Amino acid sequence: MSPAAQDTALSPFLAAASGKRTTHTPVWFMRQAGRSLPEYRAIRGEGSILDAIKQPRLAADITLQPVTRYGVDAAVLYSDIVVPAHAVGFGIDVAPGTGPVAEQPFRVHADLQRLREFEPETDTPYVLETVRMLASELKVPLLAFAGAPFTVGSYLVEGKPSRDHLITKQMMTTEPQLWHDLMQRLAQHAVASLRSQLDAGASAYQLFDSWAGNLTQDQYRDAVLPHSTHVFSELKRSHPHAPSIHFGVGCDHLLELMHSAGATVIGLDWRTSITDARTRLGKDTVVQGNLDPSLVQSDVATALAGADRVLADNANHSGHIFNLGHGVTPGVNPDVLAAVVQHVHERTRS
Amino acid sequence: MSPAAQDTALSPFLAAASGKRTTHTPVWFMRQAGRSLPEYRAIRGEGSILDAIKQPRLAADITLQPVTRYGVDAAVLYSDIVVPAHAVGFGIDVAPGTGPVAEQPFRVHADLQRLREFEPETDTPYVLETVRMLASELKVPLLAFAGAPFTVGSYLVEGKPSRDHLITKQMMTTEPQLWHDLMQRLAQHAVASLRSQLDAGASAYQLFDSWAGNLTQDQYRDAVLPHSTHVFSELKRSHPHAPSIHFGVGCDHLLELMHSAGATVIGLDWRTSITDARTRLGKDTVVQGNLDPSLVQSDVATALAGADRVLADNANHSGHIFNLGHGVTPGVNPDVLAAVVQHVHERTRS
Repeated sequence: MSPAAQDTALSPFLAAASGKRTTHTPVWFMRQAGRSLPEYRAIRGEGSILDAIKQPRLAADITLQPVTRYGVDAAVLYSDIVVPAHAVGFGIDVAPGTGPVAEQPFRVHADLQRLREFEPETDTPYVLETVRMLASELKVPLLAFAGAPFTVGSYLVEGKPSRDHLITKQMMTTEPQLWHDLMQRLAQHAVASLRSQLDAGASAYQLFDSWAGNLTQDQYRDAVLPHSTHVFSELKRSHPHAPSIHFGVGCDHLLELMHSAGATVIGLDWRTSITDARTRLGKDTVVQGNLDPSLVQSDVATALAGADRVLADNANHSGHIFNLGHGVTPGVNPDVLAAVVQHVHERTRS
Repeated sequence: MSPAAQDTALSPFLAAASGKRTTHTPVWFMRQAGRSLPEYRAIRGEGSILDAIKQPRLAADITLQPVTRYGVDAAVLYSDIVVPAHAVGFGIDVAPGTGPVAEQPFRVHADLQRLREFEPETDTPYVLETVRMLASELKVPLLAFAGAPFTVGSYLVEGKPSRDHLITKQMMTTEPQLWHDLMQRLAQHAVASLRSQLDAGASAYQLFDSWAGNLTQDQYRDAVLPHSTHVFSELKRSHPHAPSIHFGVGCDHLLELMHSAGATVIGLDWRTSITDARTRLGKDTVVQGNLDPSLVQSDVATALAGADRVLADNANHSGHIFNLGHGVTPGVNPDVLAAVVQHVHERTRS
């Protein structure tokens, strides 16, 4: 075990992720590193995030910025869910202001040739260098992440951000074998990516299935769940002590199914109340979330009132990691987020 | 009772809406009239829908087109949810390809002056002329509709279509009195609009709260539900026999709350299974829905397989109105929708 890992072994984040009592409820924010921070805009430069993360010192500094500013209880690697697909040469980029775009989307079996297996050590050595830097510099746990096979697959199939994922749903319905092969390959990407980040010093990981909420229960159960379950079970085999978080937006109708995929922690968006989640999934369920991101877009009083409702909803349960219900948006005032962190820490200090 | 209303009193649509046995499961599609139909594109012309509906013969013909083509069991008035706000001079239009836009959004109390009470007989006589034409020409019931106070209000406050409704949520949180006054006024618009359509010959009505699914349970309960409840109770008072449908997208987490607003029928999007809805709301709950709209974007076989899953989910319950889980998108092939109507009719014929 590395010295850094020892330092963080009893951190509030890792304790809460295992449902253990902590000195205070840990807080981090999805997309806490990024455009909402002036210090990010000062060093980030132009161009795709996929170029920026090729500079380990830059990526590490961006990852550290919100930890320094907010005093959050976890760092989250500055990266993107399409990194593996980009690195193996599929032909996908992240267009600033738009999101992932692929000129030649994934539509037929031959497209699998552009999507070989992902080998993190040789395909993205710079990511692992960033993780190692951070593991030696951070005083809080580093969170690895990967995109879930469905959400990454939807970008590959649609070729751009989509609201309804029509082509993706058509493929899973009319070409189940092609869809299955795509999901298997992307599950390999997620497993390899997460394992390599954990081996390099990350302490926990989150699987982002951000757009799964657009699916019916049947579609999710048949075409998606087996592949996300595979990711968690593979990671549990290689890294049995690393807490895992499973997150999606608008997934209230999929809560039981997503929970069955086997993660340690279920991430909730603002639509699902924490009380409801524990009623449905079991009273000891460890949850992450779930302040409505719109409530940190206004003044401090509004944000703290919202945070208090989340804390009341959690009712002093030890298994709670405080977060927003989705990522921080670029227009957020960092002072509001700083006030939320301080407030949650003070209110929950034991 | 007019002759037209007598003719439709025992229609499958009206029977199912009351949970009564029918000769077959009735079908209609949200946005069945519109860009997906070549005959619509042939007569519609350019410009805003708000101008098109000022021509009663044109609006009636557009309303009739899908009834003729598909043999659906209900017609739905060709109109828009912002018609009342536009008619009282708020300053909102529907930009083709974009949606509702207001140059001066609703932000302060003085904006209420641009949003006086709605008087359908003098503000939109052409709408009522269209309804009267249709009531005398149609062989199936005509469905009236209105936007729910929240969804219309979100357009007025944001000034354009929005994904996250940040400004709207800020207003309901930080300026509850201003929000309440806005909702009260928009509830008056909805009540007046629906009453006038029913008086002119419509047989049932749907309240569209399309974007309510973006709210937390607390936000919906405190800031929205009282106003939608008011609309349904006012209509029940004046038109006790007209079935009502309450519809939103992504509202699985709000299902019990929306149901409590008092509509006869709960509209489900594709995320909520019919079985789940009846487990949660009561076994005799009348539901409308809920084929995933993406499944009618492909071939006939895909659409019919999806329709069969919806019918299986409903399990021969008499209280079912077949529909998509959201509106028909412009790219849909009308032949696929026609096949769905025929298939559902044949499969459920008693």
